[in-house]
Amino acid sequence: MSFDNKHWFTEAIDETGTAFSLKLKSKLHEEQTPYQKIEIFDTQTFGKLMVIDGCTMVSSRDNFLYHEMMTHPALFTHPDPRRVLIIGGGDCGTLREVLKHPEVEQAQQVDIDERVTRLSEQYFPELCESNHDPRAELHFTDGIKWLREAENESLDVIIVDSTDPIGPGEVLFTEEFYRHCRRALKTEGILAQQSESPLLHQSILRNMYQRMQAAGFSHQATLSFPQPIYPSGWWSATLAGNINLRDFREQDVAQKTFSCRYYNADIHKGALAVPEFMKD
Amino acid sequence: MSFDNKHWFTEAIDETGTAFSLKLKSKLHEEQTPYQKIEIFDTQTFGKLMVIDGCTMVSSRDNFLYHEMMTHPALFTHPDPRRVLIIGGGDCGTLREVLKHPEVEQAQQVDIDERVTRLSEQYFPELCESNHDPRAELHFTDGIKWLREAENESLDVIIVDSTDPIGPGEVLFTEEFYRHCRRALKTEGILAQQSESPLLHQSILRNMYQRMQAAGFSHQATLSFPQPIYPSGWWSATLAGNINLRDFREQDVAQKTFSCRYYNADIHKGALAVPEFMKD
Repeated sequence: MSFDNKHWFTEAIDETGTAFSLKLKSKLHEEQTPYQKIEIFDTQTFGKLMVIDGCTMVSSRDNFLYHEMMTHPALFTHPDPRRVLIIGGGDCGTLREVLKHPEVEQAQQVDIDERVTRLSEQYFPELCESNHDPRAELHFTDGIKWLREAENESLDVIIVDSTDPIGPGEVLFTEEFYRHCRRALKTEGILAQQSESPLLHQSILRNMYQRMQAAGFSHQATLSFPQPIYPSGWWSATLAGNINLRDFREQDVAQKTFSCRYYNADIHKGALAVPEFMKD
Repeated sequence: MSFDNKHWFTEAIDETGTAFSLKLKSKLHEEQTPYQKIEIFDTQTFGKLMVIDGCTMVSSRDNFLYHEMMTHPALFTHPDPRRVLIIGGGDCGTLREVLKHPEVEQAQQVDIDERVTRLSEQYFPELCESNHDPRAELHFTDGIKWLREAENESLDVIIVDSTDPIGPGEVLFTEEFYRHCRRALKTEGILAQQSESPLLHQSILRNMYQRMQAAGFSHQATLSFPQPIYPSGWWSATLAGNINLRDFREQDVAQKTFSCRYYNADIHKGALAVPEFMKD
């Protein structure tokens, strides 16, 4: 068995002391955009893999776990989600899940790097199948700026589908950012944000809770789920709002007209379960 | 950042096309026993790591997830677990969790390789803290032989805490083995077995269900949970029995006198949730 940099893509993280690798068939694409380096690989067992600045972003095989859990818990917790903003999410997988909800009237996706979306259309066409839905708006600009200019109380759900809170993604984890989210959301509005590994990144989660609280979100809830290509294979999404975030429209989930590969009402409830070590 | 075989331990699996690595401080021990090669490493962020024949077995940092989920769901599903047999489990972590249950009168651990236990006592003393409990019996012999000689209807719970169903562990996933389990268990008895990754090993799970059914277990239930050092970071335990395995002594969990780091009643229920893709 050969394990080397030629036959495997490896994301090794000194800080967490962990690395994850996928066996490759070939490299399909590489480019440096004004914002980041994007690579696309064809893997042996996980389909296509998109890597940004050396970090695994999305694979054909396991992205359904992440995209479904970033979307459906928030949208089924909100009583009537009509206007949704996605910050980041350039691979369009979150957008596709959002648009499965028939009550959604408008879904704006704001990612700074158009090349992520164009490469996703080429290599992950299944994630982009709703890009031409008349309710979809794809904007390629700075998400913070977009949010700053958003009207007060104009949105029902904001989904932050971003990179880690290190480097360019850092600003999306600040109290100031959460204040803008709170202002742009209606009273019952919900913010959903990817919140890293429950095992490896507990201090990030703790900071998020404190800042969300300080920004005026009285309720938070974290849902955890498997995501094999991300560090530790265990990931989370955190909801913030001013309504009870532990109840959801369970009846509507049971009667939903679209299909999922991971999400259902039991999975939603299960993802809300808080491990003992996280209660401290 | 240096990623190489000197500073990292890597388990690379051609079959699943995935690899997981931990950054090392040093190698503490290596020996070839009559059964297998055992290595012990000191890692940067996961504490000690035991590796058997190149496969990650147990780390100080994340073993609580596996050991708690291999034990407490089975023992809280059984109405009154008094006699427990652990097949494999030489690191003694499962034994420790079993002996937290005050109603357990006898816990037999049967692992073929005494060196696993002796090295665990040395490098994972926290897992071995109940080895001298008067209810504990440590036997170093062939688990299949042990089970074949077990009296009919003499056990309440059998926990199979073994390696993968490839090589020496294979026999623990056969219909014949399950027949012996069924015979040795009392009517309400429960078999709990580690059942690999829900994402990567669906055919193993399907085979287990069929063979358990054929061996006379009318009910099965699979619980999934995170386990970062195992392939995909997402693992499972499957229960088999002739009672409802989806209900458990929830009241007793709420009132339990011992502490866990992961397990609680919500986690138990959540782990039973069946992802959509596994319903097929």
